[in-house]
Amino acid sequence: MASISETVAIARQQFLALQGKHYFNYGGQGPMADRAVDQLIQALQKIQTEGPFANAVSGWLQAEGEQIRSAIAEALGTSSETITLTENVTVGCNIPLWGLPWQRGDHILLGDCEHPGVVAAVKEISRRYGLEVSTCALAATMNGGDPVAVVEQGLRPQTRLVIVSHVLWNTGQLLPLQAIVALCHAHAPQTRVLVDAAQSVGMLPLESPGWTLPETGADYYAFTGHKWLCGPAGVGGLYVRPEALAETAPTFIGWRGVEVDGAANPTGWKPDGRRFEVATSDYPLWGALRQAMAVQAEWGESAARYERICALSERLWRGLRSLPQVKCLLTESPPPSGLVSFQLLGDDAQPSPDLHEALVRQLEDEKIYVRTLLSPHCVRACVHYLSLESEVDELVARIAAFTKA
Amino acid sequence: MASISETVAIARQQFLALQGKHYFNYGGQGPMADRAVDQLIQALQKIQTEGPFANAVSGWLQAEGEQIRSAIAEALGTSSETITLTENVTVGCNIPLWGLPWQRGDHILLGDCEHPGVVAAVKEISRRYGLEVSTCALAATMNGGDPVAVVEQGLRPQTRLVIVSHVLWNTGQLLPLQAIVALCHAHAPQTRVLVDAAQSVGMLPLESPGWTLPETGADYYAFTGHKWLCGPAGVGGLYVRPEALAETAPTFIGWRGVEVDGAANPTGWKPDGRRFEVATSDYPLWGALRQAMAVQAEWGESAARYERICALSERLWRGLRSLPQVKCLLTESPPPSGLVSFQLLGDDAQPSPDLHEALVRQLEDEKIYVRTLLSPHCVRACVHYLSLESEVDELVARIAAFTKA
Repeated sequence: MASISETVAIARQQFLALQGKHYFNYGGQGPMADRAVDQLIQALQKIQTEGPFANAVSGWLQAEGEQIRSAIAEALGTSSETITLTENVTVGCNIPLWGLPWQRGDHILLGDCEHPGVVAAVKEISRRYGLEVSTCALAATMNGGDPVAVVEQGLRPQTRLVIVSHVLWNTGQLLPLQAIVALCHAHAPQTRVLVDAAQSVGMLPLESPGWTLPETGADYYAFTGHKWLCGPAGVGGLYVRPEALAETAPTFIGWRGVEVDGAANPTGWKPDGRRFEVATSDYPLWGALRQAMAVQAEWGESAARYERICALSERLWRGLRSLPQVKCLLTESPPPSGLVSFQLLGDDAQPSPDLHEALVRQLEDEKIYVRTLLSPHCVRACVHYLSLESEVDELVARIAAFTKA
Repeated sequence: MASISETVAIARQQFLALQGKHYFNYGGQGPMADRAVDQLIQALQKIQTEGPFANAVSGWLQAEGEQIRSAIAEALGTSSETITLTENVTVGCNIPLWGLPWQRGDHILLGDCEHPGVVAAVKEISRRYGLEVSTCALAATMNGGDPVAVVEQGLRPQTRLVIVSHVLWNTGQLLPLQAIVALCHAHAPQTRVLVDAAQSVGMLPLESPGWTLPETGADYYAFTGHKWLCGPAGVGGLYVRPEALAETAPTFIGWRGVEVDGAANPTGWKPDGRRFEVATSDYPLWGALRQAMAVQAEWGESAARYERICALSERLWRGLRSLPQVKCLLTESPPPSGLVSFQLLGDDAQPSPDLHEALVRQLEDEKIYVRTLLSPHCVRACVHYLSLESEVDELVARIAAFTKA
């Protein structure tokens, strides 16, 4: 029987994009399997050959849409009608942000590790509708403390929406989503929870009992296909809990979301998550994402992939902690995710953004890919089930050499 | 010197998608030149090889974005900073629809030939903000009458936005945009004009004096790359008149539209049209659209392309008018566009939706591509500068055979 390392080595042969480099930016964008790239190209050529605008193509695209919604739903432990296809995770966040029936004085509670794009959207919504916005200090719980208690302290009688990430993109912390949602829902009948799932879909075993979206209770769960699922950039999605669908109005609206009568007059919304979809997209992305997901499933179940991700991030975390001038953000236990963030200490023993920038650039010259983050200032290296133990060890060695230079 | 037909035949050799068929659905989606397809594939592979998430790729994508904004701006007779890249024309319409500072009681005047997606968006905005919406009867002017006078009759003291198409997607009528905009702007200081340009960008010579967007005075001009420009599906754009930028707030918001400080806190909008862009897209589409536009420019200037489009649509229109059971929507003069819409008359001498459907299906079996429309019930055939006289004649012959069968 092949060892896990051997099966990973075999799986990696399906990724030209992984050859000749050590890749640690899965949290930015995952590499595509050759099959996924081929699927995209074939779909593009099929559309051109058989149409592009033809009844045959239109029927095929509709079936492609059903297939990708269904594949995504299965991976999230939910059903197709709860899924909306979007261009990216940010659009998925904007849909509920602009779709809730806001009343002046409503309150939004935002975790303090949310992405700047989401923060900016919340700021604009608050300006337009006269909302109150506050932030709760989740980052401070990364090495101890109770994120549920932090959220609880942030809740107000008028809290309409709580926004958190399932896995925090900067620290790699995994939030106890089920407990947070249960708290918020118990708090007040109108309180909804929007989850930024950019770093969790494709990483966490969301199809497994105890992890599925219906079990978390989350009202909105926005994700992308191009990070941990290793699909193409430009397609993501949104899960809307069935109980939250009716109160969430479509905002950006187009023909894909509406029903029309025999004279093309709009008569209402599509009955399911398609109501939030707008208009023409790059449809070949759908099949490519489906192939990307199939490649992952062929290697192993999502629980096995997550287990390997955590084993590799622990290996990386322990290696980095052995280096004197490196400080991992997480100090008490290894990351419960594939995100390993660390700081390089300057001569004053303080984290040095300049060193972070220099490290990332030098590593990129060596075809080792990591990234800097600005809040907190750090470098982030991501491991996937596709990562190799030898890659992790090489990364640690190169960082050691950099800090000694 | 090669005749025009010969240069078109040569240009068509660059389109595998045009081989073995007679294509008349340019108003739905244009076929892509092989070079545009190749560019898309090469960009996808380049991103995978050099990243996908790396500083080198990020810098290259930024340059790609600047190039496509610049190419689009040139084709519209404007400058790059007025251009926002979007996923499609409908998103481009939704940006000003949701971005204007609506006051209860504001009025929207909508042409009666607008796309159902836009109509549905206006309906939802009116519900949310307590707006008044009315429609003006532009379709009735297709064979006489004054569209400017029709718009004038629809204006009210509280009219905040007028929405029209530059070329009407159902009848092929070209509206006198400059006169309509001048009327609206003279009407009241707050009146803005949003133009659905799905059928005009890539068809009209918008870079030519007398046609440029600044000369039209339009405040918002939303378009797509995948119809008359023959680019890939999934990328379009929006022009915002500089004078309208400040009052148009971003709605769907993400990292591509915001500026951040050194700690990643959003500090404001990007200074130009990028403020309405959201987040990760399928970036390879940008270069593909640029190539598609270059292929067209190599054949001839936009004025020459438009002249050929009109010559071919006149040929088609005259051919169809010679058939006893066919009724063209335009009766007085040939279409000033590439859109030729017609009805098949049943035994009762009335237009027959069943016959339209049957014709489109039979023609598709013969690899001749046209489409039905529902309002008014008709069949639409589009000619491009890439169309051949022989294709047009063959289409007329096939329709003649169908009506005689």
